[in-house]
Amino acid sequence: MKESFRPNLYLALVHHPVVNKRGSVITSAVTNLDLHDMARAARTYGVRAFYVITPLSDQKTLVDRITGHWTTGVGGEINPTRRAALELIRTKDSIEEAAREIELAEQSPPKIVVTSARENPGSMGFDALRAEIKDGRPYVLTFGTAWGLTEAFIAASDYVLEPVKGNTDYNHLSVRSATSIILDRLVG
Amino acid sequence: MKESFRPNLYLALVHHPVVNKRGSVITSAVTNLDLHDMARAARTYGVRAFYVITPLSDQKTLVDRITGHWTTGVGGEINPTRRAALELIRTKDSIEEAAREIELAEQSPPKIVVTSARENPGSMGFDALRAEIKDGRPYVLTFGTAWGLTEAFIAASDYVLEPVKGNTDYNHLSVRSATSIILDRLVG
Repeated sequence: MKESFRPNLYLALVHHPVVNKRGSVITSAVTNLDLHDMARAARTYGVRAFYVITPLSDQKTLVDRITGHWTTGVGGEINPTRRAALELIRTKDSIEEAAREIELAEQSPPKIVVTSARENPGSMGFDALRAEIKDGRPYVLTFGTAWGLTEAFIAASDYVLEPVKGNTDYNHLSVRSATSIILDRLVG
Repeated sequence: MKESFRPNLYLALVHHPVVNKRGSVITSAVTNLDLHDMARAARTYGVRAFYVITPLSDQKTLVDRITGHWTTGVGGEINPTRRAALELIRTKDSIEEAAREIELAEQSPPKIVVTSARENPGSMGFDALRAEIKDGRPYVLTFGTAWGLTEAFIAASDYVLEPVKGNTDYNHLSVRSATSIILDRLVG
């Protein structure tokens, strides 16, 4: 496959720590379609790996069973393009574990970039991040599930990306849509 | 809500006529998450209505039941932002029926714009369509389900939009991701 320049991008979908509607810290459930849609978008935009973050062993088993069907099972024979997407998926207990694995592979600790539907003070614009990721260093684009990443998680990150805006004040995209648009804006 | 200029855009998700893996013409089943994700993206980008096209009455009933829960039922009270998205949805038997309704509302027949993951001769680029829709006339962005719209449907359309490309040769985005990226490129 001919591929143009691609930055050293990773995706992470975080199921813990995230908040619920009332702001309590929870662990959300893995959603099958998040894995498929985000893996396909990741593959389209040359992302190196897609980390599914959950500390729950039954949830990790579920992810491994879904991806196994498409990567080593019958699904991959029937649908090789789906296999090419889902083999990007790795399960980890925490973003720190994912970062350690990336650091080992890349010989450089990744920058953690948080995405959010809310305005955050000091957030980075799309053009600025698009320019920065050309430096070849590893970056992890991090997406929250449920009502979003915790304040502590956001505070511990390296960058917060500005929210995706359309041409209205409505900002309630699905995480699947937001991931697709953000990848397109950064590397499309 | 403050809203900037928005073109006269409509979405249509077509469940018939589309083709299956072997190229036979079929009617695909409606998918709940397509309705939610595409309605939320449509609302974000100021789309005027989102037509779900299927000639099957049980499928139209299913769509009406899903949207009813969120627009007139308890779902809308709990989650008003979801209501604001799902109230864009209309069910129609065919793209012609949708076009007639738009023509009545707009006093002008809409241009039918087909999207496709494949390269098509004479397709229109994103920049060209982005410029054209500023004319204020109605346009329907049309998305196929299953293995895509039929050749006859594509041949009868006014324009075919170029495929979404990332920075790889992989072009197997979900219809949910493709819709989000296309709306962002055209009006974001």
